[in-house]
Amino acid sequence: MSDEVMILKKEIEQHLKQTIGPIENKIEELLLEDTTQDFQEVILYQVASGGKRLRPVLTLLFCELANGNTEDALSSAAGIELIHNYSLLMDDIIDRSPYRRNRPTTFVKFGLPIALLAGMHYREAIFLSALKSPASETINKIFSDVVRQLVEGERKDVLFEQAGRDEEYILEKRYKTITLDDYFEMVGDKTAVLIKAACEVGVICANGSKEMIEAASSYGWNAGLAFQAKDDVLDLFADAEKLGKPVGHDIKEHKMGNIAVLYALEELESKQREYVLNVLRKEKVTDEEVNEVIDLIKSTKAPQKAEEKAKELKEEARKQLLNFPDSSAKKMLENIATYFVERTY
Amino acid sequence: MSDEVMILKKEIEQHLKQTIGPIENKIEELLLEDTTQDFQEVILYQVASGGKRLRPVLTLLFCELANGNTEDALSSAAGIELIHNYSLLMDDIIDRSPYRRNRPTTFVKFGLPIALLAGMHYREAIFLSALKSPASETINKIFSDVVRQLVEGERKDVLFEQAGRDEEYILEKRYKTITLDDYFEMVGDKTAVLIKAACEVGVICANGSKEMIEAASSYGWNAGLAFQAKDDVLDLFADAEKLGKPVGHDIKEHKMGNIAVLYALEELESKQREYVLNVLRKEKVTDEEVNEVIDLIKSTKAPQKAEEKAKELKEEARKQLLNFPDSSAKKMLENIATYFVERTY
Repeated sequence: MSDEVMILKKEIEQHLKQTIGPIENKIEELLLEDTTQDFQEVILYQVASGGKRLRPVLTLLFCELANGNTEDALSSAAGIELIHNYSLLMDDIIDRSPYRRNRPTTFVKFGLPIALLAGMHYREAIFLSALKSPASETINKIFSDVVRQLVEGERKDVLFEQAGRDEEYILEKRYKTITLDDYFEMVGDKTAVLIKAACEVGVICANGSKEMIEAASSYGWNAGLAFQAKDDVLDLFADAEKLGKPVGHDIKEHKMGNIAVLYALEELESKQREYVLNVLRKEKVTDEEVNEVIDLIKSTKAPQKAEEKAKELKEEARKQLLNFPDSSAKKMLENIATYFVERTY
Repeated sequence: MSDEVMILKKEIEQHLKQTIGPIENKIEELLLEDTTQDFQEVILYQVASGGKRLRPVLTLLFCELANGNTEDALSSAAGIELIHNYSLLMDDIIDRSPYRRNRPTTFVKFGLPIALLAGMHYREAIFLSALKSPASETINKIFSDVVRQLVEGERKDVLFEQAGRDEEYILEKRYKTITLDDYFEMVGDKTAVLIKAACEVGVICANGSKEMIEAASSYGWNAGLAFQAKDDVLDLFADAEKLGKPVGHDIKEHKMGNIAVLYALEELESKQREYVLNVLRKEKVTDEEVNEVIDLIKSTKAPQKAEEKAKELKEEARKQLLNFPDSSAKKMLENIATYFVERTY
């Protein structure tokens, strides 16, 4: 990354480090309320796997930006992170994922029955987080809508895969082609909706105006889509060593729902297009095939188009911040949006 | 069943038949709000498997009893039935149950990934049902507490099993002995809490007094425990032909958490006791072994003790109805409590 982006990264990381203490405590408090001793180890396992806690920090930043007391947004912020972890826990069951952040998933560690019950418990902790927030009913409605959309996003994500499942229903209903509209619907539901909610509940907890809520919401939505588009690009073209994992994970996971893949499919001539689709539809994909697909995508304008789209969305996000007076919170939010698309791993 | 009990059964069934129309419509409306066309078939599958809809009818009866308009309780009543179906759908995944009510479970029909997403969607429909009720925040809190307890009840139910799971965590944490207190905690969470909530939200939707809410709650709690105790007895000693399934299902499923089993274990001498425990702990239990265990339990006072306990709980439930003036709703609620323990299949 350029020196400039490295500085952004460090500033953001430092801010997260300074901010997450009370959020961590609140998350634990919400998860453990009224639970039996035995179950606590299971329940805490998912959130203890770490994560940057970026989403709840967005909540606090928007609360600050709307002139609120961040104390008032703490419970909602924790709720946002709980929603994220609820969906991770359940997605790991759905995808039978053995590892997350270098350790066994809840699903593998405790087995499906107990992991599923832990997931259901997360949903109730989310309810509690909203109940303890200002405007609790509004926030509970937002949280429920978010979960509903995450479910729909994950459903589409599963049906966008081109292989790797053996359930008859999925084989039958799987998408044969995916448009860019389908893609944005899926990542909107799966990623952007939660980031949008993170931002807007911050303003709601600060009792901000309707205009402020709309600006926060639009910042989150656009930044969320930008983040995902960039993530798709990095999955295919990052420096594997710096990324800390092999590139082309999406190809191995049979995912057609990657913005660069979709742009490339629009451009490639039919023989090459067929090759890419065939690789995505193979149960076992070799490293060589992954590299060939990546090279084919690189031969098109898809990488640039995806980067441009991400930048466009980032600009749209940053524009929303003009609605707020200058402050350190505003600067941090500008930096976060920029970092989302400028990072190179 | 005696003629008297047959008449009760018919009266209750007729009442259910007359009442469930609007509940069915509301359930469907809540489940389908804001869903994509494709997902609807999956979502409706679980509730379409039928069921007597007894719980939501309890809600309407208590609303009527507290002088309310049953229209006001319709959304909560549907929510109660949705909670029941949410837990059935998830339990079927947990237990890998192939059939429910003579047809494939959602889990088997659509596969685990899609079934799990459908289950998560149910939880959001439950939120919506409370949101559309009078005193929505109170009812949402009750619903969340109920779900939390259902999760805990199912967790205990799994850990009370004596065999049939291969997850390391479960093998390690499984209960070696179960007291009657453990039993009542488990069935309280797993069965009685939802029936209790069904009754109390009926009064809440009618804006009934605190005393009425408490009476309804106590009726539901005691009737729920009575229902489960009787269910345990029937599982072991009913006429298989009339029950419509073989007796001793709990023994085959390795469940020590059956009230008659627990009473018998208290009484049996150590050799017989060991025999019962050994059968419960075998991965595969033969019909002969089931019959021998049932005969051993029959040789104790356990069946009578369980019946007496169920009757005692039923009396406690009926006593609560003295707080309400006479009406056809009150008569029906008396009959339901009686039927819970007098039924013989």
